[in-house]
Amino acid sequence: MTTVVLLGTGNIATHLFGVFSASENIHLKQVYNHSEESLIPFRDKTDVTTSLDDLQEADIYLLALKDDVISKISAQLESKKGIVAHTSGAVSMEALKNCRRPGVFYPLQTFSKKIPVKHTEIPFCLEAKFPADLEILQKLAEDISGKAYHISSPQRKKLHLAAVFVCNFVNHLYAIGEKICEEHHIPFEILQPLILETAAKVKIASPAELQTGPAIRNDQNTIKAHLELLSTNENKEIYQLLTQAIQSLHGKKL
Amino acid sequence: MTTVVLLGTGNIATHLFGVFSASENIHLKQVYNHSEESLIPFRDKTDVTTSLDDLQEADIYLLALKDDVISKISAQLESKKGIVAHTSGAVSMEALKNCRRPGVFYPLQTFSKKIPVKHTEIPFCLEAKFPADLEILQKLAEDISGKAYHISSPQRKKLHLAAVFVCNFVNHLYAIGEKICEEHHIPFEILQPLILETAAKVKIASPAELQTGPAIRNDQNTIKAHLELLSTNENKEIYQLLTQAIQSLHGKKL
Repeated sequence: MTTVVLLGTGNIATHLFGVFSASENIHLKQVYNHSEESLIPFRDKTDVTTSLDDLQEADIYLLALKDDVISKISAQLESKKGIVAHTSGAVSMEALKNCRRPGVFYPLQTFSKKIPVKHTEIPFCLEAKFPADLEILQKLAEDISGKAYHISSPQRKKLHLAAVFVCNFVNHLYAIGEKICEEHHIPFEILQPLILETAAKVKIASPAELQTGPAIRNDQNTIKAHLELLSTNENKEIYQLLTQAIQSLHGKKL
Repeated sequence: MTTVVLLGTGNIATHLFGVFSASENIHLKQVYNHSEESLIPFRDKTDVTTSLDDLQEADIYLLALKDDVISKISAQLESKKGIVAHTSGAVSMEALKNCRRPGVFYPLQTFSKKIPVKHTEIPFCLEAKFPADLEILQKLAEDISGKAYHISSPQRKKLHLAAVFVCNFVNHLYAIGEKICEEHHIPFEILQPLILETAAKVKIASPAELQTGPAIRNDQNTIKAHLELLSTNENKEIYQLLTQAIQSLHGKKL
């Protein structure tokens, strides 16, 4: 049985709380947050506290906190005997250098409070100062997900950067597609099978090899017509830049 | 039983051939292409021809051809009594104006020859000069997919434009993510659950409402660090432009 104290009550903390609570191998002992109010959803289910001085003993202290407070909060956990691990993609393990047993437990997924994620599909990127601690974090990941990867701090930063492209920026392109549909009274659901199929294909082949569309065909008539149809300069710029990028990757010139 | 003659042997034609052949309600009578060689995969399964003069009688002549030859080929089908419909997202129905019964049968999906598409998940965007023909096209779509939408030529152009954003451009962002992983010896499969989850969410909520990441948080430290990590000016430009676009949509300033 691995004992865990969870620090934070945001999207990641909320999802981890759910999956830890559902696991027979994990005992979630306590949730910490500086604000009493944000602890309300948790207080009927486990012990909660607003004071770092009142943290219980645990195998792992999991810091599911905003990037800019991780270092400061961890400095107050210096004396803890358990592993102190954060869940951030962008923060180096070095930020926890004052702790005895620093680690990273980064779930590479997009979390929205209201939408449940299938937790068997969360890859965890793990790092620890000590090999034995890496094993403990791996066990924690496997207890809830089955997918664990050992990723160094420099690698994790690159992975987080890649995630911004394939998740955050992709989502904005979906939002542009939705907006175009709205403007022309077309139900956005027509695009949903295409969106899902485009995503599903990355499991079968390399995206670079799967590229289709007017840019890679160098179909200038369609490209020109599309640029004329776009109603904002920002979307025109995005269209041009991505068309250019596809063509430069695939060796064609505008 | 609807009889169909298929003109073309590319990605869309190949997929439609597969799903038509599998349907009990559709009789695929013939495949046309100007090149003998490209008909090889079809000739054991149905009648094939390289001559437009040898086309059989059918309820529907389906032009799954490159955009720039649709008008020219259709001009040679003037005398046909059946519906002449093309499968293009970008070409107006007007391109078939010489035909007696013009129509459009546009499958809004991404097709790669080697990857089978679940054909129940293809939305068909339909248009016809005559209401009775629209019904025939709708029946054809429903026989193989169950999802049919009546979409006018101007709407279809906007939808095709939106599809470029949510499919072609999205795929290029996947390719950038894959490249970043390769450069830093990280298995790309770590990103796949994130890619799938980001796509799956559009069925549950509006992408604009689901936006996450450093741009919408206005997390300048992460944005700055990411720009420094990117190895090409093109990717830096894409990062900056999409960050800016997310912030302008959500009312935050860089």
